[in-house]
Amino acid sequence: NRWNRPMMITMMAQSQPYWASIESDIEVHLKNAIHVRPPVTVFKPMHCLVFAAPKTKASALCVAACELVGGDRDRAMDAASAIHLMHAAAYTHEHLPLTDRPISKPMIHHTYGPNIELLTGDGIVPFGLELLARSVDPAQKNSGRILRVIIEITRAIGSLGVVDGRYTEIRGTQSNGEELRDEDTWMEHVCKKKVGEMHACGAACGAILGGGSEEEIEKLRKYGLHVGMIQGMMMMVNGLGRKEEREMEVVERLKVLALKELESFDAKKVDLISSLSQTLNCVIPN
Amino acid sequence: NRWNRPMMITMMAQSQPYWASIESDIEVHLKNAIHVRPPVTVFKPMHCLVFAAPKTKASALCVAACELVGGDRDRAMDAASAIHLMHAAAYTHEHLPLTDRPISKPMIHHTYGPNIELLTGDGIVPFGLELLARSVDPAQKNSGRILRVIIEITRAIGSLGVVDGRYTEIRGTQSNGEELRDEDTWMEHVCKKKVGEMHACGAACGAILGGGSEEEIEKLRKYGLHVGMIQGMMMMVNGLGRKEEREMEVVERLKVLALKELESFDAKKVDLISSLSQTLNCVIPN
Repeated sequence: NRWNRPMMITMMAQSQPYWASIESDIEVHLKNAIHVRPPVTVFKPMHCLVFAAPKTKASALCVAACELVGGDRDRAMDAASAIHLMHAAAYTHEHLPLTDRPISKPMIHHTYGPNIELLTGDGIVPFGLELLARSVDPAQKNSGRILRVIIEITRAIGSLGVVDGRYTEIRGTQSNGEELRDEDTWMEHVCKKKVGEMHACGAACGAILGGGSEEEIEKLRKYGLHVGMIQGMMMMVNGLGRKEEREMEVVERLKVLALKELESFDAKKVDLISSLSQTLNCVIPN
Repeated sequence: NRWNRPMMITMMAQSQPYWASIESDIEVHLKNAIHVRPPVTVFKPMHCLVFAAPKTKASALCVAACELVGGDRDRAMDAASAIHLMHAAAYTHEHLPLTDRPISKPMIHHTYGPNIELLTGDGIVPFGLELLARSVDPAQKNSGRILRVIIEITRAIGSLGVVDGRYTEIRGTQSNGEELRDEDTWMEHVCKKKVGEMHACGAACGAILGGGSEEEIEKLRKYGLHVGMIQGMMMMVNGLGRKEEREMEVVERLKVLALKELESFDAKKVDLISSLSQTLNCVIPN
């Protein structure tokens, strides 16, 4: 059994409480930030669409990376929440019914009309960045770190990051392969831009906020990239219903690369964060 | 002649070189920031849509406010550019062809399909905020100011600002007046949220970056709000083709309020910025 499923499930079971506790903390933090208040016509759709988007491990990685380099969990909560918000906004806009959208995109349930979903997505992004900018604490003298995290996040979600991935994905699904001679290259580019770099960003932001060294930040960024690529590959394999052979080879290679980035960290502390790369391909429902 | 047109035109002629020089500097700054480079498929639409949006005086006010409080023009250029970018992104999304859009919105020329316009709008916002976050200069120790400006801008464009205005506007044009008992209140709310608060934000950001006192920042914020409200009223009056009587009264009242906010500033320096409130209703083509 190439998947080695029993071992995976055991590892996942051990690490699950850690990731579950992070995700639950982020959810509480977000619910507190966007509690429904006047104007209800604005906050209700925002609340609904933020929690309708599937969770991304990019947020959880932000918290785990912060803890790995010795920072308190609290320090990373605003950034982790902002990352989920950016992800939710992109997810909402990705599913907007536009006249020139490829029909291959899976249909999702729409609670609101396109106008409200467009506007709410437009509102979520500045809301998330404001949340982050407000988390400056003069006592912690963290304004430099917060600004750095804002740059990390705006880059990851922008035209050279998630937007590039979404664009390349649409172009690929619309072109019937004419323009894209190499489907594997296309898929890896989409995974990297849409998912990989958001995870890289999450891990790097956590390390920055936790007070990690430049070396630690870069190692965690690469770890996040590999983990995110695995996540993206699994999502695309599941979504496209493609043959798995080649993708699974890539995933196995990415796992090795991911773990390599963690080698220099304290072996005792590294178990929690490293569990993510080992269990990701079980987490995605088949 | 209620409009007193000859006097207006004279004042505009005197102040025009000042505003023209600001707008030209912002344009150069923006063109430099978004020069078309690889990936061209990303930067070309971005470049095109950023300059397709009509100019907003909110950007120019940012520079003028900075100069009024004694700051160098350079200090405000990134924020002024970011404000134009936010405005261009909102303008692009406002004109997206969605299935539930009211048909009353004036048609604009679309160089790109809806998908690209949606994505480009999504890319412009983080691009602008990144530009701003990167303008931190350790020599100037301005990280606190930049973070404050980021908060100002994210608030102004978000769910309690421009997004609220766009939402209220759509609801008003769709509801046939059933829900909205008072059209004047509706119009003022839309003007305030969509246009007024962006101008207030622009002026406040300029004052913050120029090193203005808290009092100066708040006076310039109010000046910007009144000027923006005038701008918004003129745009709606022109757009809706409504009777002008009541709106012109409001505009005259707003001009008085605007000038009142500038009373405590140096009389010699105030002429340039104050010309905006006097000439705005000539600037909009009828």
